[in-house]
Amino acid sequence: MSKIDKVVLAYSGGLDTSVIVRWLQDTYGCEVVTFTADIGQGEEVEPARAKAEALGVKEIYIDDLREEFVRDFVFPMFRANTIYEGEYLLGTSIARPLIAKRLIEIANETGADAISHGATGKGNDQVRFELGAYALKPGIQVIAPWREWDLNSREKLMQYCEQHKIPVDFSNKKKKSPYSMDANLLHISYEGGVLEEPWAEAEDDMWRWSVSPEAAPDQPTYITLQFEQGDPVAIDGERMSPATLLEKLNKLGGANGIGRLDIVENRYVGMKSRGCYETPGGTILMKAHRAIESITLDREVAHLKDELMPRYAKLIYNGYWWSPERRMLQAAIDESQAVVNGEVRLKLYKGSVTAVGRRSEDSLFDEKIATFEDDAGAYDQKDAEGFIKLNALRLRIAAGKGRDLI
Amino acid sequence: MSKIDKVVLAYSGGLDTSVIVRWLQDTYGCEVVTFTADIGQGEEVEPARAKAEALGVKEIYIDDLREEFVRDFVFPMFRANTIYEGEYLLGTSIARPLIAKRLIEIANETGADAISHGATGKGNDQVRFELGAYALKPGIQVIAPWREWDLNSREKLMQYCEQHKIPVDFSNKKKKSPYSMDANLLHISYEGGVLEEPWAEAEDDMWRWSVSPEAAPDQPTYITLQFEQGDPVAIDGERMSPATLLEKLNKLGGANGIGRLDIVENRYVGMKSRGCYETPGGTILMKAHRAIESITLDREVAHLKDELMPRYAKLIYNGYWWSPERRMLQAAIDESQAVVNGEVRLKLYKGSVTAVGRRSEDSLFDEKIATFEDDAGAYDQKDAEGFIKLNALRLRIAAGKGRDLI
Amino acid sequence: MSKIDKVVLAYSGGLDTSVIVRWLQDTYGCEVVTFTADIGQGEEVEPARAKAEALGVKEIYIDDLREEFVRDFVFPMFRANTIYEGEYLLGTSIARPLIAKRLIEIANETGADAISHGATGKGNDQVRFELGAYALKPGIQVIAPWREWDLNSREKLMQYCEQHKIPVDFSNKKKKSPYSMDANLLHISYEGGVLEEPWAEAEDDMWRWSVSPEAAPDQPTYITLQFEQGDPVAIDGERMSPATLLEKLNKLGGANGIGRLDIVENRYVGMKSRGCYETPGGTILMKAHRAIESITLDREVAHLKDELMPRYAKLIYNGYWWSPERRMLQAAIDESQAVVNGEVRLKLYKGSVTAVGRRSEDSLFDEKIATFEDDAGAYDQKDAEGFIKLNALRLRIAAGKGRDLI
Amino acid sequence: MSKIDKVVLAYSGGLDTSVIVRWLQDTYGCEVVTFTADIGQGEEVEPARAKAEALGVKEIYIDDLREEFVRDFVFPMFRANTIYEGEYLLGTSIARPLIAKRLIEIANETGADAISHGATGKGNDQVRFELGAYALKPGIQVIAPWREWDLNSREKLMQYCEQHKIPVDFSNKKKKSPYSMDANLLHISYEGGVLEEPWAEAEDDMWRWSVSPEAAPDQPTYITLQFEQGDPVAIDGERMSPATLLEKLNKLGGANGIGRLDIVENRYVGMKSRGCYETPGGTILMKAHRAIESITLDREVAHLKDELMPRYAKLIYNGYWWSPERRMLQAAIDESQAVVNGEVRLKLYKGSVTAVGRRSEDSLFDEKIATFEDDAGAYDQKDAEGFIKLNALRLRIAAGKGRDLI
Repeated sequence: MSKIDKVVLAYSGGLDTSVIVRWLQDTYGCEVVTFTADIGQGEEVEPARAKAEALGVKEIYIDDLREEFVRDFVFPMFRANTIYEGEYLLGTSIARPLIAKRLIEIANETGADAISHGATGKGNDQVRFELGAYALKPGIQVIAPWREWDLNSREKLMQYCEQHKIPVDFSNKKKKSPYSMDANLLHISYEGGVLEEPWAEAEDDMWRWSVSPEAAPDQPTYITLQFEQGDPVAIDGERMSPATLLEKLNKLGGANGIGRLDIVENRYVGMKSRGCYETPGGTILMKAHRAIESITLDREVAHLKDELMPRYAKLIYNGYWWSPERRMLQAAIDESQAVVNGEVRLKLYKGSVTAVGRRSEDSLFDEKIATFEDDAGAYDQKDAEGFIKLNALRLRIAAGKGRDLI
Repeated sequence: MSKIDKVVLAYSGGLDTSVIVRWLQDTYGCEVVTFTADIGQGEEVEPARAKAEALGVKEIYIDDLREEFVRDFVFPMFRANTIYEGEYLLGTSIARPLIAKRLIEIANETGADAISHGATGKGNDQVRFELGAYALKPGIQVIAPWREWDLNSREKLMQYCEQHKIPVDFSNKKKKSPYSMDANLLHISYEGGVLEEPWAEAEDDMWRWSVSPEAAPDQPTYITLQFEQGDPVAIDGERMSPATLLEKLNKLGGANGIGRLDIVENRYVGMKSRGCYETPGGTILMKAHRAIESITLDREVAHLKDELMPRYAKLIYNGYWWSPERRMLQAAIDESQAVVNGEVRLKLYKGSVTAVGRRSEDSLFDEKIATFEDDAGAYDQKDAEGFIKLNALRLRIAAGKGRDLI
Repeated sequence: MSKIDKVVLAYSGGLDTSVIVRWLQDTYGCEVVTFTADIGQGEEVEPARAKAEALGVKEIYIDDLREEFVRDFVFPMFRANTIYEGEYLLGTSIARPLIAKRLIEIANETGADAISHGATGKGNDQVRFELGAYALKPGIQVIAPWREWDLNSREKLMQYCEQHKIPVDFSNKKKKSPYSMDANLLHISYEGGVLEEPWAEAEDDMWRWSVSPEAAPDQPTYITLQFEQGDPVAIDGERMSPATLLEKLNKLGGANGIGRLDIVENRYVGMKSRGCYETPGGTILMKAHRAIESITLDREVAHLKDELMPRYAKLIYNGYWWSPERRMLQAAIDESQAVVNGEVRLKLYKGSVTAVGRRSEDSLFDEKIATFEDDAGAYDQKDAEGFIKLNALRLRIAAGKGRDLI
Repeated sequence: MSKIDKVVLAYSGGLDTSVIVRWLQDTYGCEVVTFTADIGQGEEVEPARAKAEALGVKEIYIDDLREEFVRDFVFPMFRANTIYEGEYLLGTSIARPLIAKRLIEIANETGADAISHGATGKGNDQVRFELGAYALKPGIQVIAPWREWDLNSREKLMQYCEQHKIPVDFSNKKKKSPYSMDANLLHISYEGGVLEEPWAEAEDDMWRWSVSPEAAPDQPTYITLQFEQGDPVAIDGERMSPATLLEKLNKLGGANGIGRLDIVENRYVGMKSRGCYETPGGTILMKAHRAIESITLDREVAHLKDELMPRYAKLIYNGYWWSPERRMLQAAIDESQAVVNGEVRLKLYKGSVTAVGRRSEDSLFDEKIATFEDDAGAYDQKDAEGFIKLNALRLRIAAGKGRDLI
């Protein structure tokens, strides 16, 4: 065990991380700095201050990171239409590099030699926190209590609290949930409990951010989303900051039963896990971004983006946001977005979101050429013959030499 | 103009292709063989016989290709979770190689030296028909009347009919639609008309295969879809042939408002075009196939499939089904599907389809390892430290040498 | 045939393009502007002026584009270690977009409504010229005489010269070669003649830029190449301009028999063709660039570059330099090169080039970690166990459930 | 420490693995089964029997795996033109999965519960052995002494031998080398010693399998290599078994100074390392395989192979031969090779290998079309216009709407 003088802990104010504060103090004999961030999880962060003080913490950081989170992490990711394994919008994954960055910044400010977090040894989050920390400060030490201690059940944790007189508020509603949950402005996730059986349907009272499609209004809601350089900037003509906009989309989506997801995914640590997610605003944003790209992006650029996307998604999922390969891909993605400007009109209705209209000053849709009517010579249909003939040439030569394709 | 003795025409029995029969006879002085296929477009094909006879056609082919279409084209494509440009399920694209194949088979049987079709010079279908034809019979000649003649409006076509006494039934409902449509067992498509303005919402009475989500039942429908080697084989325990199964899924999806799509896509010939699609069964199948793969496929295989998919989709969209590169990709895709067996439970409700359960004898989901509860040592959390440390090593070395990632 | 008033012709001063000048004047009744560029082909370009004047050309452009060619085209391409089909260094392909750009610039300056070139209808160069021209000036017209006229043999061309009294110097050495050749600062190519039989070995007297390996010096030559941000800037400590440096590498490589290549390649227009190439400097540069990257690039960046490269190469080969997808890829490639600084020591000997040393201030090679000797704790070998265990987890779960891999 | 009764050790008969035998017996109190394979490393394997017996080993396996190695591992890998990081032919990597497979087979036969190997904790080989073992027998235990013990220098090893009276022959020439070496039929590798400084040139007396280019014959050697379904089957018309053929190519290449390589590569465990390699036969085979593919493969298949190759190479390098993703890629690669038949004529001369001729019954090279001479209408040059026009359409539309590409 290395000698550690001061450690910065990602602190939620909940049971687990409160135990970690004391455990770090006791086990490492070190000072603990707590860091609590508002990234839109929907809970007050200020109460964490008193709890940390009660645990004897002297350096307490409480930050509102909502705008930075959406502007510098969520929106850049959505520029790539990023989806992991065809389904997952990476709501948890994308928040981790921001936390890692702040942990390291605070370690630098406070002269800490280690960071710590409350993620388990089975999950992806430990990887994301730690890869980020190592990439930004290679000499940092990492303490992952869940990999070290033997407090591997809620009972043992509570016993530890009693023994160490940790003044945690156990009435916390979230903690009583049978699910392991994580939330931020992009999504809320559920794991564990009955979800550990992939055949079992999620219970309807599990979902927190959205009404069920069945309970959504019987009338569709229409909105218009405006984009500039690939990022959304206004809803129905009203410009908003990134976090405000995403929050508004969450409300709109949630009210219309949009964004529920139930999947089995592949973790970086090698196992499959069942997760349920609510990503109301993100689901709307994804549809809208594809729609505005559909009229503004060149075809080959769009296809190249589609081919690079799974790799970019995997990289974020696995925790490599702070990596040179992510920067390299981001450079390509961002280069493509300068022309992604315009408006998308969307219909939200009982769980589904449909793009019903799109327009842009940068549109490449050319009515004169695309029309089924007379195009006044804008397109010479005879060109198609040569196009097809030369594209077929290699196939004809092969067939002429006896190659059989059936 | 080459000397042509006999040409096989893809004949629908409608106005356009009836005009083409006569135009081919007149322009090339050749015999016309008609080929009409039932691929599930929802119209009787047998009436085409009388129409062809009335036009003086002596060799008339009318085939029911529905099972072959679904078994050998639709299902293999769905094994790859194939989506073009993030949205389009390739309903039109996948039918073309089958038509091309039959045209060539009939050309071989009848000793024809050319094929012909009614696709325009602006679209993808001409490319798909002709690439397929050239790949399967390199010496075949192709006549694409729309690229040659000047009958470029409905009025001129009807005038031609009158002049040439072509006995076409102009009361055909489909022909009166303001949209250009195409249908088969996988989908129905709409182009043209008001859709040529990408900002205009599609009119609600355009859609033919599905009720609107608003009009769908207020109660969800649950079904269980069973897969063997990546293909669906049964609904709710009842085994069905491929075409029967897809037809049943279409009914289920259509009744629940599922599978409507409104996009702007990039054509192979270089322009953008607006298209609306109804793919009720395909939309359900896509969701279900991803769900059964989620528990049966190895992670790296799943990711490799996701990275190859856009290229495979593009290749089918562009008309290269009959190509060695498609065979090469198909070999990889099919290799992955032997283990894709099991059942998916789906909820259909007002436009959306959700996988709510999945199970399989071949499941790789391991409850003992994935659990949040005590796993009795199935997974050693301490392994995670080394895993992270070595994955971080290159980043730490770089950071230690001053590389900055922020 | 469109009405054309003025056309800019890519003019070499040789027989073919001299005939084209007169043919354009006669056929289109238009004014011809000639454009002759020195891109390092090794022939004087100034004589083209008198020839053009003799043909009645009033606007004559003669440009030295060597530095621009190497700086803005060759070097950016080499940043990606670009090789087409595993062998070809794209010497011809990379010169075409520069010519296309100048043709369009001159068309804009002179108010021309068309461009013209002397490339045949079977090759890639027509595509590269014309795609570039259309991308930079969409309304430009293109005249490709070889696709239009019937002067399809040398005899007919010479007959045309006599009839039209074209004062071309037929003693031009290059024209007497049995090969079709193309040269610029990056390479010289040979096609046609005996090479049309892929089994026939190229004759030794065909090669012009390099001695045969057999005739090269019996002593190796060592050089040190210095890189800054991925581009070479100095040889043996002497800084040089891009064109000077590449010319120097050509001399060094040529003298040591380096850079000969004999391949069959796949043209964009659908046929295979045999080509022989001499790329002495480029072959050295490729080896050196990989070597300096080997110590300065992050592993995942290097692998991503390797996976993107074939697509980037294909895009350049096919003529899409002036395209948004090339810009997108270039943005990613260039992002990776900021750290590609340092020196590579190379051994040139009888046809082969070997990197024998590499060093850099930006090196990521860490002797303390890589050593076989005691590393004083820089690397903890025990981390490897967890790394392997978790990487193996998915395979173990699968095997445990009976999946068989043999 | 788990209870282990019997362990199968990959045993070379050298100092390190002899120490491991005793160390395993002492540390784990278990029976050791030795496995020694001839994979063409160029040393007798039979002497390992006496050494193992002297160490008290009762179950001794000595196998000649040369044919299996080349037929089932080397040749399948070469079908993909596999190169890691643009340079390395994977000589060490490809031997490991075979060893892993035999270790597990022997563990099954002898009822052993563990395997062991002599690879260090810093390298790739531990990963390759162990991933293979876990993938083939998920419950197997792995003992990696170099990660456990403290015998981390040659001195400590020899001291251990003395203390434990291990009768090893220390005069073994290979062991006195300052380099860490590994050899098999595909290559010999060198690491460590002066190579740990990437700027230092490898000493000339390090190389063992090839003469220096300087010392190679002054006359070139010509050979003809015949391929069937992508694999070489004969040299100069003489059919040979896979191992015999590769051995013969090694002799031919070595005698002509072919196949030396000096690189810095990126290990899977996260560090860069310098390695020198001699792969005489493999270097010839790579060139020849590309040449035979150049006339027999379809263009798009060739390009797809090139794009998949870096991923396939990485996968083998990292130790995932025994994985479902390797099988998936292999299925695609093998599908492409049925037509890769024919002959390549090669020139070997002082370090370089050149393909000077290639011919095949399956050639797609079409002289009639490719010719610069009159092609009698085999190719219609006018088709090129439409081909270019439609390929340019998206670029023209964009430029027409003001998109700027310069």
